[in-house]
Amino acid sequence: MGRIAPLLLALALPPSAAVAQTGEERPRARDLGIEVGIFTPGEWNAITDVPGVRVGQTTVQEGDRVNTGITAILPHDGDLYRSRVPAAIHVGNGFGKLLGVTQVRELGELETPILLTCTLCVWKAADALVEWALARPGMGTVRSLNAVVGETNDGGLNDIRARPITPAHVVRALESADTGPVDEGAVGAGRGTRAFGFKGGIGTSSRVLPESLGGHTVGVLVQSNFGGILTIDGAPVGRELGRYSFQSAVEAAAGGADEAPLDREARDDAAARWLEQDDTGQGSIMMVIATDAPLSDRNLERIASRAIMGLARTGSFAGNGSGDYVIAFSTAESVRRAPGESAAAPGEVGNDAMSALFQAVVESTEEAIYNSLLRAESVTGMGRTADALPIDETVAILRRYGVIN
Amino acid sequence: MGRIAPLLLALALPPSAAVAQTGEERPRARDLGIEVGIFTPGEWNAITDVPGVRVGQTTVQEGDRVNTGITAILPHDGDLYRSRVPAAIHVGNGFGKLLGVTQVRELGELETPILLTCTLCVWKAADALVEWALARPGMGTVRSLNAVVGETNDGGLNDIRARPITPAHVVRALESADTGPVDEGAVGAGRGTRAFGFKGGIGTSSRVLPESLGGHTVGVLVQSNFGGILTIDGAPVGRELGRYSFQSAVEAAAGGADEAPLDREARDDAAARWLEQDDTGQGSIMMVIATDAPLSDRNLERIASRAIMGLARTGSFAGNGSGDYVIAFSTAESVRRAPGESAAAPGEVGNDAMSALFQAVVESTEEAIYNSLLRAESVTGMGRTADALPIDETVAILRRYGVIN
Amino acid sequence: MGRIAPLLLALALPPSAAVAQTGEERPRARDLGIEVGIFTPGEWNAITDVPGVRVGQTTVQEGDRVNTGITAILPHDGDLYRSRVPAAIHVGNGFGKLLGVTQVRELGELETPILLTCTLCVWKAADALVEWALARPGMGTVRSLNAVVGETNDGGLNDIRARPITPAHVVRALESADTGPVDEGAVGAGRGTRAFGFKGGIGTSSRVLPESLGGHTVGVLVQSNFGGILTIDGAPVGRELGRYSFQSAVEAAAGGADEAPLDREARDDAAARWLEQDDTGQGSIMMVIATDAPLSDRNLERIASRAIMGLARTGSFAGNGSGDYVIAFSTAESVRRAPGESAAAPGEVGNDAMSALFQAVVESTEEAIYNSLLRAESVTGMGRTADALPIDETVAILRRYGVIN
Amino acid sequence: MGRIAPLLLALALPPSAAVAQTGEERPRARDLGIEVGIFTPGEWNAITDVPGVRVGQTTVQEGDRVNTGITAILPHDGDLYRSRVPAAIHVGNGFGKLLGVTQVRELGELETPILLTCTLCVWKAADALVEWALARPGMGTVRSLNAVVGETNDGGLNDIRARPITPAHVVRALESADTGPVDEGAVGAGRGTRAFGFKGGIGTSSRVLPESLGGHTVGVLVQSNFGGILTIDGAPVGRELGRYSFQSAVEAAAGGADEAPLDREARDDAAARWLEQDDTGQGSIMMVIATDAPLSDRNLERIASRAIMGLARTGSFAGNGSGDYVIAFSTAESVRRAPGESAAAPGEVGNDAMSALFQAVVESTEEAIYNSLLRAESVTGMGRTADALPIDETVAILRRYGVIN
Repeated sequence: MGRIAPLLLALALPPSAAVAQTGEERPRARDLGIEVGIFTPGEWNAITDVPGVRVGQTTVQEGDRVNTGITAILPHDGDLYRSRVPAAIHVGNGFGKLLGVTQVRELGELETPILLTCTLCVWKAADALVEWALARPGMGTVRSLNAVVGETNDGGLNDIRARPITPAHVVRALESADTGPVDEGAVGAGRGTRAFGFKGGIGTSSRVLPESLGGHTVGVLVQSNFGGILTIDGAPVGRELGRYSFQSAVEAAAGGADEAPLDREARDDAAARWLEQDDTGQGSIMMVIATDAPLSDRNLERIASRAIMGLARTGSFAGNGSGDYVIAFSTAESVRRAPGESAAAPGEVGNDAMSALFQAVVESTEEAIYNSLLRAESVTGMGRTADALPIDETVAILRRYGVIN
Repeated sequence: MGRIAPLLLALALPPSAAVAQTGEERPRARDLGIEVGIFTPGEWNAITDVPGVRVGQTTVQEGDRVNTGITAILPHDGDLYRSRVPAAIHVGNGFGKLLGVTQVRELGELETPILLTCTLCVWKAADALVEWALARPGMGTVRSLNAVVGETNDGGLNDIRARPITPAHVVRALESADTGPVDEGAVGAGRGTRAFGFKGGIGTSSRVLPESLGGHTVGVLVQSNFGGILTIDGAPVGRELGRYSFQSAVEAAAGGADEAPLDREARDDAAARWLEQDDTGQGSIMMVIATDAPLSDRNLERIASRAIMGLARTGSFAGNGSGDYVIAFSTAESVRRAPGESAAAPGEVGNDAMSALFQAVVESTEEAIYNSLLRAESVTGMGRTADALPIDETVAILRRYGVIN
Repeated sequence: MGRIAPLLLALALPPSAAVAQTGEERPRARDLGIEVGIFTPGEWNAITDVPGVRVGQTTVQEGDRVNTGITAILPHDGDLYRSRVPAAIHVGNGFGKLLGVTQVRELGELETPILLTCTLCVWKAADALVEWALARPGMGTVRSLNAVVGETNDGGLNDIRARPITPAHVVRALESADTGPVDEGAVGAGRGTRAFGFKGGIGTSSRVLPESLGGHTVGVLVQSNFGGILTIDGAPVGRELGRYSFQSAVEAAAGGADEAPLDREARDDAAARWLEQDDTGQGSIMMVIATDAPLSDRNLERIASRAIMGLARTGSFAGNGSGDYVIAFSTAESVRRAPGESAAAPGEVGNDAMSALFQAVVESTEEAIYNSLLRAESVTGMGRTADALPIDETVAILRRYGVIN
Repeated sequence: MGRIAPLLLALALPPSAAVAQTGEERPRARDLGIEVGIFTPGEWNAITDVPGVRVGQTTVQEGDRVNTGITAILPHDGDLYRSRVPAAIHVGNGFGKLLGVTQVRELGELETPILLTCTLCVWKAADALVEWALARPGMGTVRSLNAVVGETNDGGLNDIRARPITPAHVVRALESADTGPVDEGAVGAGRGTRAFGFKGGIGTSSRVLPESLGGHTVGVLVQSNFGGILTIDGAPVGRELGRYSFQSAVEAAAGGADEAPLDREARDDAAARWLEQDDTGQGSIMMVIATDAPLSDRNLERIASRAIMGLARTGSFAGNGSGDYVIAFSTAESVRRAPGESAAAPGEVGNDAMSALFQAVVESTEEAIYNSLLRAESVTGMGRTADALPIDETVAILRRYGVIN
């Protein structure tokens, strides 16, 4: 997308205009003129810009108690078991239940689709994934399969103890997976998640490197459910929206702002209360990276670790209770692996050419997180409501801090 | 057990006598006079010699197609969620599905019992474990739980694709867990496993350190299901029993043993055929270590890595397809942790005092593996039979190589 | 520092005024009113706010060819070998020569001071450190010592191939180490470094947690020498200063900014040229974290990993050639270790209380990096000049983007 | 070597004959008829059987106080900096000073020769290695180099605090490196080491896989300096030689062997005294693996971890003070890497074909350790003598336990 778009949007959206806030119409970051980083997104600005990658989602919403779902990411549309993709898993903070970690690391490859779901649903989801995979053509004698299933905890809006995911939910996500645009916000595994004190969810973004830097595509998909003080492309949105209550605490301190001791006390008090909130330092984020660059599993681990840097730029500090994980895979045919074959012919990207991919991962992860928040509408469940990020106020803050015109 | 026992046994078991080979009566290593290492076992020579540790097992055997089960290890009989034990996981070769790894590593603790089962059963078992744990007293509001479930692949004797484990099997293992002697051989999660070309299974052993070295107890329990050429306390039992076919290959080469070129060819041929066998380089082993020594999670990781050294001494080479994992935990009350408490008071064993624990782990792992083989009777399933290690011949070999008198 | 300071500074520094740019007088971030994060710095806003921590530096500048030095960090003023501090090392990107890594990880402790220097100087510095340590009282029989020496590559301004560090330089840094304020900018191991295309160097910052969050102090010291596009507290300073040349490239494209295709091409071209620059994706950063919170080595590793999040917020993407390392240690007396002692009595901070420390590390790392740039004056060496970050223009950008008033 | 050799040797060496014990004439394991494992050694039964690999050694012996040296391993005779070999480092127990670890892991490659030396000599050796490398043709502009230097502690026989290694020693080892047979025992970096209570040193061994398993060669070189109870191919040599004093303790207990309580006490006492000895649980071992199999750095890490299994079979338990490290590299031209090249074309061995290489590493590591002991003559230094393993008695024990005829 060129620079013209934000200008048009700015014309279309005078400061006083309200951006519609239903999920269907809520804007993505680029729609608001936010351009994260230096590289250009692909056609859909989604993980599906990596050729062959498909995403399928089942949103599970029942009455007031169930808000959860499945998001499935399929590296390619062939036989994943016999045409494995190199893969890596990076753990930012390992307070989570991600399944399948050690085999991916030992063998450097993925042999099933990736599922995201709710924390206590991972085991049911994995069992259903394996059942589905074992029934596929050519799988009649397979007796070992490594299911990779990640999660974040939507227990605030979802009856997570009931583990409401069924095999049918899993199959629907897998069977409906498709290329093209990806639903974002309160959908699939993002139905019941919260981030930065707002409604979080599924978000995605991509970058296409210049030809002179290899021309490869990187796509990221996130399930956002974590704490921190939201900044958007550098603007202190969370602080300005009062989700971090320092400002209001200081104001409540009745003109005490000029006196350092009181100020220190008020500041400390605000920080302490913030950290004690339910959301802060809890939650988690799953980040999935796809690329068509032919990468070794070692260099996939390296790009995976850069997703944490994109996460950091949004305001996360990876609190103790946060399960922050990154799964990265390469779809390049030259690096795929067939079981039993004693040799492969990688043609991998060399270490010295990795920097552009690193930058692409940092900025597309950052943007995917913004999309997960911007696209998510408010959701009520278990007697609580997670408020959608207010678009108008956010736009105003972004303007005030020079992020958009 | 003192040195008198082997002598008595030697008297009782003249070379020509047959040792009964049913599981009930098959001997443990010490019964044959095999004394691995330098330290003394505890009362039961079992993981349950560590005070408070309980083991429960469900053997699942149905017709010709189902040979699998559950082995549960409970670190103590209190509320594990609120009185967590420091823990570590070491990966020897990560071709396996062990669940719960990253959280154990991040937080350095275990909050549920450990389950062992069959490869494709881990997810059903984990879901059942969580259901059981969430229903326990005081767990009414818990929304996150890290199930640690390991496995080996019993698909040779078990219809593993059917994933025959049910919640009832899991609950029975957990509820029946007890201190005292532990069933070994073709029971629980060891029902359908094979090792070194023989029937493997569950085995256990322990060591009590001298008071001057701390007096702590170390117990190990294994689920053996791996390849290699069995040696017992140094004696080449597997080779002598023809499970590694070099000797027979050479003999088949009709007197060619004196000519080096033919010898080289025959040897290579034997090695190649051995490696191509179904069992070699496949399978897996789960090793669980308990100790009452107050250890940090870092030093638990260190003792966990020594179990691989015990494994190596039995003849394993950790083939590509082997999932070789070690889970270690400390039951010492001084190092237990309660969630929400901002400080603990470990009183841990210092680095400089770890060597004795390392040696104890090496030798009790080695002995636990021997017990898993010695105690396992032959099992037939899926149209195949895994033969029990022949006791008489093994005893003869052990005598020939000076391991026992 | 209370909120009044920035206001006063704003009064004292009208937009047109020039801030003096010699190292002696160049401002720190707080002097400009930049307040990173939510917690309050300690007295010196330096790593030395952690009681007992001392820093000593030797700046080595000779003619046009030598610009390097030593920065030494001493955890406490006692006998480090006999009163070891728990420690951890986190590797963000391991393209570097940091010495001493595996022993720190295995034993979880530090037994010598930490040195920072130039890349090819690490071995001479380590040997000198060991010589110095072996000659200290009570060290007469010690035959093993683990020197921890980190580096960044100042080869652009320094004749690094000559490895110009001598034992005398090392001893001077160690012997002059002191508590109190720390010299920043182009001093010690920061003499010849560059960051974001400007002169980098040594920077430091600290945070004191509110009493209700434990009251502990966290201090960070960095040696900055890396690439990326500088942002300061969210403001795109590097981009605005033209160090990332996208804007100028677009402008050079003669009014083409409105046409998307040309825009894409110009953008790609700018990105590619940026990545090909000497500095981008190269360099490194060493980050050292001290805290008086009694932490296990595992939780020290966790806080170390958060420094990468602070680094990310400044604009780094951890390019391929960057060696990004974090060393963290705890000075709390309750967790120190004496060799030969078979038990310690930690009293460590529990996992659940770690979040505040994580946030403190993220923000003090970020601020330490800003200080390293703000305080560094221009340096010429090897025929090149690394320009100091221009204070006036930076202040103007910070105002324009709402970071300061 | 075929099976005929041991028979001939047995004829040549009647039980009463003395095997000459000077280093020059002391036998290797194969000379005694010890055949470890199932695969066949290469021509030299040395790491130099991997084509192109060269070893150079400088033995540094001066008066009574200096017994140390340098052992250099060069992966190939080309420009290592521009034709890098994939490499990995595995840490068994990280109590050691091995330099260069993190860069090898991050980039998966080696860009300098490997040096082994004494613990406190690593920094001087590394600086000399870098000086030598920077002066090589084509290196005129290189400003970063990752020296990989390992060590074990020969401080028992060597004045290690004086750090007696000079640049000339390093250069001599590098410049004299050659293919063909490798000196073993008390030479090079093995001059002052001890293992299992005997004189240790440098040892090497190799295996050539059958063509049907890939036909690749694996070579291992060790610097042995560690504790444990020596077993040779299963025979309890250390115990029988009284280096582990349990037997004598029992005998000293005056007929008490039949009474269990006394037995337990005597056994515990023996174990405790053994662990308190100077050598037990201390020392270290460096293991270097070369192969011409084209391996990814991930699979090199996997074969590196198997060296620990070979180590375990010799009787090591990796005591707390032991620095047990493995460095593995592939010399295959297809997987070498040139800096700046954006792509390589591996053609790597697949995961499924790794098992044979794993077994080859286990057995050649085991045999290399035996060679290091068998070939080492007694050495006196610092007022102590490390006794050579007594060949005659060892042969007798090996016969008694059926290892050799």
